[in-house]
Amino acid sequence: METVSTTRSHGGTQGVYSHRSKATGTDMTFSVFVPDHAEGAKLPVLWYLSGLTCTHANVTEKGEYRAACAKHGIVFVAPDTSPRGDAVPDAEDEYDFGKGAGFYVDATQEPWAKHYRMRTYIEEELPALVGAEFPVDLARQSITGHSMGGHGALTIALRNPGLFRSCSAFSPIVAPGEVPWGHKALGRYLVDDRKAWREYDAVALIEDGARMEHLLVDQGTADDFLVEQLQTHRLAAACENAGIDAEIRLQEGYDHSYYFISTFLADHVAWHAQRLA
Amino acid sequence: METVSTTRSHGGTQGVYSHRSKATGTDMTFSVFVPDHAEGAKLPVLWYLSGLTCTHANVTEKGEYRAACAKHGIVFVAPDTSPRGDAVPDAEDEYDFGKGAGFYVDATQEPWAKHYRMRTYIEEELPALVGAEFPVDLARQSITGHSMGGHGALTIALRNPGLFRSCSAFSPIVAPGEVPWGHKALGRYLVDDRKAWREYDAVALIEDGARMEHLLVDQGTADDFLVEQLQTHRLAAACENAGIDAEIRLQEGYDHSYYFISTFLADHVAWHAQRLA
Repeated sequence: METVSTTRSHGGTQGVYSHRSKATGTDMTFSVFVPDHAEGAKLPVLWYLSGLTCTHANVTEKGEYRAACAKHGIVFVAPDTSPRGDAVPDAEDEYDFGKGAGFYVDATQEPWAKHYRMRTYIEEELPALVGAEFPVDLARQSITGHSMGGHGALTIALRNPGLFRSCSAFSPIVAPGEVPWGHKALGRYLVDDRKAWREYDAVALIEDGARMEHLLVDQGTADDFLVEQLQTHRLAAACENAGIDAEIRLQEGYDHSYYFISTFLADHVAWHAQRLA
Repeated sequence: METVSTTRSHGGTQGVYSHRSKATGTDMTFSVFVPDHAEGAKLPVLWYLSGLTCTHANVTEKGEYRAACAKHGIVFVAPDTSPRGDAVPDAEDEYDFGKGAGFYVDATQEPWAKHYRMRTYIEEELPALVGAEFPVDLARQSITGHSMGGHGALTIALRNPGLFRSCSAFSPIVAPGEVPWGHKALGRYLVDDRKAWREYDAVALIEDGARMEHLLVDQGTADDFLVEQLQTHRLAAACENAGIDAEIRLQEGYDHSYYFISTFLADHVAWHAQRLA
């Protein structure tokens, strides 16, 4: 692992790091905020998965999470959203497929299968690296994300019961199997068979029996993607049918941007902190 | 004035606006955050002047001021740092002169004198526009800024006694007449005569008798520009000699970036709020 930069901020260290990933076969960049802490202490960790077109940098610059993480003593990790580099196939002119749009899946179809392995990267490789290199207690992890990253957070938490103390999401894609963004991504990264998509679809995972205990979702009512792509009501219905005690909040007038996320991310950090204590 | 965008954030409205400026002879863009407020209320206003290479967007995206402004009921205005557009002469390959580097002066030398009139723009034209278009009480104004914008905040406050209730700055250029950034900018925008520079030099203004009551400065000790360009000690000495009760804080380990500014900007908002009440 190489250190790209470290900067003092909000009583902690905001770092950016890169490493050679076995999962994706590429160099990968991610950011980690570590609050000041007693020597030898191991802190709980909150994962933040970003949305379409983003890298680690968007939330790192605009997320407004550091004050809350420093207050609650939580390490905050923000990975990239896809493999990068000239060797990686891309879908030029498509913001919602290819680079910046890994959808947290392990692709099975060519030409994507070689590098687009963000599921293994986020579920296995990066946690092992973060556990080895940073002062974190991997027995105390929580996860959140935005839009495509909300989809990532929900599906990873649902597939790995017990791994996360809590899961939250901002304007998540809750049922990719039912909406255009998901049809495109899952239909090309995976075989074009809806059954193969169900392990990458939060609502389908719940329908198929997956459960989680602590779930918080914030969704803006002025989000231009709500009706066509996000369809939060499908998650609400699935949770109600499954007896999952989800707190799904509609935030009046807020949109899909970091102006929305930054308004509520500190609140999410505090909510996770209660469950990570 | 045209509305470029408005976005709900932190219990208020973050807007971006553009207008035709008489002072600069160009279109100018600025951002304004207006907290939710009672109908008909007039709120105090905090001006934030940005540093070299910045536009309104840097602090708007990375400044982490909205929560504090919403809490204290303060309107936050972030202007651009220079005239813009194809008709405006620039110094290509110089990040510290020309576009993005207006230094808050009214240039007197060609080819700069026609458009580079940021002093008049910030001191006169933009306050009149903001007063007419937004729910602000111009009897309650404070000002802050970063680096070149800290220089702007200090010099504008010193030249206009009584206009601002309080002034603060992040890593300001305190004595442009004594440092390379200032030599370049003042020496080319103005006649190359140190006497002409003194009204654009906070330390010189204080030496020449200007005073202010409430002054707060934060300066990071790991700021790469501290020794050569910022020289905070000159402001501390000038204030001490003049009997100005300045609070100048050295922040251990912090650098010149928005990771530093965002750590302390909410604190500055609260400090100004006490004086704007």
